[in-house]
Amino acid sequence: MPSDTRDRLLRTTSRLLRTQGYGATGLNQIVTEAEAPKGSMYFHFPGGKEELAAAALDRFAERLGAALQRGLDEADTVADAVVRFFDVEIDRLERSGFVEGCPVATVALDAAGGHDALAAATGGAFRHWTDLLAAALEAEGRSPADARGAATLFLATFEGALVLAKAQRSTEPVTLVRDILCGILAPPGS
Amino acid sequence: MPSDTRDRLLRTTSRLLRTQGYGATGLNQIVTEAEAPKGSMYFHFPGGKEELAAAALDRFAERLGAALQRGLDEADTVADAVVRFFDVEIDRLERSGFVEGCPVATVALDAAGGHDALAAATGGAFRHWTDLLAAALEAEGRSPADARGAATLFLATFEGALVLAKAQRSTEPVTLVRDILCGILAPPGS
Repeated sequence: MPSDTRDRLLRTTSRLLRTQGYGATGLNQIVTEAEAPKGSMYFHFPGGKEELAAAALDRFAERLGAALQRGLDEADTVADAVVRFFDVEIDRLERSGFVEGCPVATVALDAAGGHDALAAATGGAFRHWTDLLAAALEAEGRSPADARGAATLFLATFEGALVLAKAQRSTEPVTLVRDILCGILAPPGS
Repeated sequence: MPSDTRDRLLRTTSRLLRTQGYGATGLNQIVTEAEAPKGSMYFHFPGGKEELAAAALDRFAERLGAALQRGLDEADTVADAVVRFFDVEIDRLERSGFVEGCPVATVALDAAGGHDALAAATGGAFRHWTDLLAAALEAEGRSPADARGAATLFLATFEGALVLAKAQRSTEPVTLVRDILCGILAPPGS
């Protein structure tokens, strides 16, 4: 069984979690939309839907983490990188007609409470991204505690702004908080 | 048919949306958990699950709006009220074992993209709460634009912190952003 079936299952699951959450996503829909052979799902993910969703979130967390790190490395300041992260999401919201959000946040709200494997995956994702951002903020001269607080503030505000934007079908909340956070996250003494 | 059946349907729906979102919540579960007579659901909500969920969100938005207004009226400053809003949620997260979140945010992420009535309800809720907070911030001497930005920042950060807390099954993200926001929302010149 070719391993690109596994990859297609993970990508399709990630997309469905991003648009409709865990509860509404059924295995039949995943297998159909991934164009995967029947049976391949339980071959690759014997634990079923929960194992597949957790693996899709782990894959997403790793890839988004790499993208965040690239963005931080390429920008002059964390604040500049943050503006770019917001702008990427503004573009995604508009292009998708406010259907696509963050798969980790969506599963955190609709399923992590009742599924330990999903809580491990969503919690691990946010911890990974917080660590990356905190390290970059510390490198700009903040204390470890201050850097951790500012990184958490950014992630919370970013995810919450996506909630407001999807709810209102408007990018206005995202641009408003982007501009305020940009000032808050400016390098100390700048 | 007694009108408390309608109220029980709305309360049960609100609770289920808060814990598991729109996709996972079925009409049978709502009717069973509300102990409502079969048939009462379509009597009160002929539009079915979408109409019932939108009405439950409208009811929640109004009640939480009233609670926010009371909190703003009773506190010395908006910043003090905001600390209390965070502490109420920290308590709810801990008591519910990180299962209960905000029904509006959960539906915004898992269903508002594909259901116009749900987008109207979730968008209306956030607009209502933003207006209340912005008015209180303006009364403390901020310009209308500054007050609107700060109100949006608070709501986004609050909702996002609940996402992180549910994901990590920890209240740490909520306490971190509470303490930072408290300083940001202090009255101008204080």
